[in-house]
Amino acid sequence: MYFAWLHLDANYVILFLTYYFMNGVLLEMEVKNLLVGQSGGPSAAINASLAGVLAEGIASVRIGKVYGAVNGIVGVLRGDLVEMNDIADEKQFQLLKHTPAMALGSCRHKLPQLPEGLSEYQKIEAVFREYNIGYFFYIGGNDSMDTVDKLSRYFSSTDMDVRIIGVPKTIDNDLVETDHTPGFGSAARYLAVTVDEIIRDTSIYPTKSVTIMEIMGRDSGWLTLAAALPRILGGSKPDIVALPEVPFEENAFLERIRRLFDHTNNVIAVVSEGLRDKTGSYVGQGAKSGVTDIFGHQYLSGVGKYLETVVREQIGCKVRSIEVNLMQRCAAHLASQTDLDEAESAGREAVRRAVAGATDEMVVFHRISDQPYQIEITGKPVSQIANQVRTVPPQMRDMNDPVCRENAKRYLLPLIRGCAEQEKDENGMPRFYLLERHKS
Amino acid sequence: MYFAWLHLDANYVILFLTYYFMNGVLLEMEVKNLLVGQSGGPSAAINASLAGVLAEGIASVRIGKVYGAVNGIVGVLRGDLVEMNDIADEKQFQLLKHTPAMALGSCRHKLPQLPEGLSEYQKIEAVFREYNIGYFFYIGGNDSMDTVDKLSRYFSSTDMDVRIIGVPKTIDNDLVETDHTPGFGSAARYLAVTVDEIIRDTSIYPTKSVTIMEIMGRDSGWLTLAAALPRILGGSKPDIVALPEVPFEENAFLERIRRLFDHTNNVIAVVSEGLRDKTGSYVGQGAKSGVTDIFGHQYLSGVGKYLETVVREQIGCKVRSIEVNLMQRCAAHLASQTDLDEAESAGREAVRRAVAGATDEMVVFHRISDQPYQIEITGKPVSQIANQVRTVPPQMRDMNDPVCRENAKRYLLPLIRGCAEQEKDENGMPRFYLLERHKS
Repeated sequence: MYFAWLHLDANYVILFLTYYFMNGVLLEMEVKNLLVGQSGGPSAAINASLAGVLAEGIASVRIGKVYGAVNGIVGVLRGDLVEMNDIADEKQFQLLKHTPAMALGSCRHKLPQLPEGLSEYQKIEAVFREYNIGYFFYIGGNDSMDTVDKLSRYFSSTDMDVRIIGVPKTIDNDLVETDHTPGFGSAARYLAVTVDEIIRDTSIYPTKSVTIMEIMGRDSGWLTLAAALPRILGGSKPDIVALPEVPFEENAFLERIRRLFDHTNNVIAVVSEGLRDKTGSYVGQGAKSGVTDIFGHQYLSGVGKYLETVVREQIGCKVRSIEVNLMQRCAAHLASQTDLDEAESAGREAVRRAVAGATDEMVVFHRISDQPYQIEITGKPVSQIANQVRTVPPQMRDMNDPVCRENAKRYLLPLIRGCAEQEKDENGMPRFYLLERHKS
Repeated sequence: MYFAWLHLDANYVILFLTYYFMNGVLLEMEVKNLLVGQSGGPSAAINASLAGVLAEGIASVRIGKVYGAVNGIVGVLRGDLVEMNDIADEKQFQLLKHTPAMALGSCRHKLPQLPEGLSEYQKIEAVFREYNIGYFFYIGGNDSMDTVDKLSRYFSSTDMDVRIIGVPKTIDNDLVETDHTPGFGSAARYLAVTVDEIIRDTSIYPTKSVTIMEIMGRDSGWLTLAAALPRILGGSKPDIVALPEVPFEENAFLERIRRLFDHTNNVIAVVSEGLRDKTGSYVGQGAKSGVTDIFGHQYLSGVGKYLETVVREQIGCKVRSIEVNLMQRCAAHLASQTDLDEAESAGREAVRRAVAGATDEMVVFHRISDQPYQIEITGKPVSQIANQVRTVPPQMRDMNDPVCRENAKRYLLPLIRGCAEQEKDENGMPRFYLLERHKS
């Protein structure tokens, strides 16, 4: 009996030693779960970033389960999380990478200020505790980075170690501190090809006509610049390129059309939805709805329609306006391979940085060279990024100036390179990734 | 001297015999020149038909030079013809086949009635005589077939042997006597892929929204039916498909949206630009411009915008209208391989039929079977075709009926098969064919 007790005692000692040893390792290498959400407007590349985050999370020994938040931070608030380990399968990974818009759904929700909005943050904290979330990634644009910043600040005041990283996404390409944003290259490629086709389409009649294409971009003209690619790459059209960075003068616009008619029948103008006059008012504001979104942005539509009316009344020729609309942000069939690959890399790098200890950061692209095109992916404090807008610099604004066109070419061309190959079904239609719950 | 005269005389006899012999052969196989023009609105396949006509013309021993009429019949009236033997080069042929819109330019010109408009026909006759035109091909839609018919009748009253054949082209797919028209399959493919992407795009927010896509098609709903392909192929959307063949009832439309909101957040409606109410008036007519084109057709725009306003006022949810606009007719980057191949074949068959003696005909497609898909290309008297409209038959109109969806699937699916491969430049942008005079 005495002997047996001694024997047990020895076992307990081993058990205790093992416990303390393992505890040390666990302290060094604590396994927590990952949560990722998508927010803001769609793009053709936002799921590539999601795929990158998930795949890197699955591969990391520091990360346990990988969860997606359905409808972004709104889904977190509702506790609507889904496990996404299916992405470990290469086929599912590729499907997700090439699917446009948000596989997880999106939201447009602005977190409240503290301390008034404390209860909302506490709800999020409770969900994070329930799911043992140690890593949170938010893929989005300007407004989403505001969420990243606020959440990071909140969690730094708690005893929870949650690393929060923003992954940039916006076709508008208007985030500061990064050379460009995932999603932009694909939208740029769509616009370049589409405008090139519209140029053919509108050139067929021997009568004077004006075609006005209204391009997205509330506060920056990057997408409108991309719509000018057929000209930037050596063509003569589009004839007029109107960025929101340059105050719009209606009379100068009409005068330019009249002069262009001296040597062309078919004038093509690409104009930003965010055109403003020199007083800062949106062009054709009177014709707008006045409805604003949750962030206080005015819904824009109609600058093309407005200018169409002006040209018809003032010049009297055939005129048509084309709102390129949602197609420019979800056209996965024309996605840039460069864009999708970089979007995936941004997602992967976000995870690597978080695991290494980073938080309250946004992943950024730093361009090392144009030819050969090379970028470095790093991170910047998100507080320097949220709620700011990067506009087209003056040295790329005037498409009548060959130096500006050359600058724009060096900047844009690498971003649209390569046409991403989508998986097709037996009918030749693209296959898309669907969350399990959305499969019928 | 006398002997010498005899010798010469014998030579003359041989010369005379040779002349009579050759003349007989020439009567049997007279070589005349070919002229081809393009007319009406663009498509992604109209240059494939042009390439087919030219290549078959170049290959034919009965045809000498091949000319293109710049800007259709208007170019003929001006004597603006260009030689197009460059198409003998396979690279140029392929480039032309994959270039959207009209390489030769187009026109919308209606030939006058006889006898009042005689001088116009005489001008055309003079140009045909000057260029020794024996074969004239006109690639176009309904209005172009009117030109084919009138010209054929005119030349049958002259001593000239000119064979005139129409090659069908219209994305609207509304020509009678043919299973479908070249250009439709590519537009259908563009719409199917684009609507599928818009479905992803609009599904991301957990709030109620309506998206209305306005599709081309003045008098027939074929393109709107094609926009329903994601549903026809087994998906649940678009939720509402409104063809011009079915009188539109605003209240039923609104009621259907309200009912759809019971089980979906994001309603997608594809509606034809030519929607009419039960009195035959265009929906939202009050909001239209009232401008008409040369053929007396009312310029349509705005049914989408009109319904957007109605939904906003009556239902009050988020609503957006999208006019798919010119993109659906010039998107060569999504052209259907089947469509381009058939368009080329239609051009080639037109030449073969003309050489064999046919005139006053339009080339038509006769479908032999759906599975495997097989067509026969023949010709029909153009007088049976001009100025008529082929609408969507009742057995394909109701997209809520699975039998209609199955019928539409059997009809549409073969037409959109295969994605045509465009030649790309070093920047990944599509290369297009240009007439020599348009190269800068």
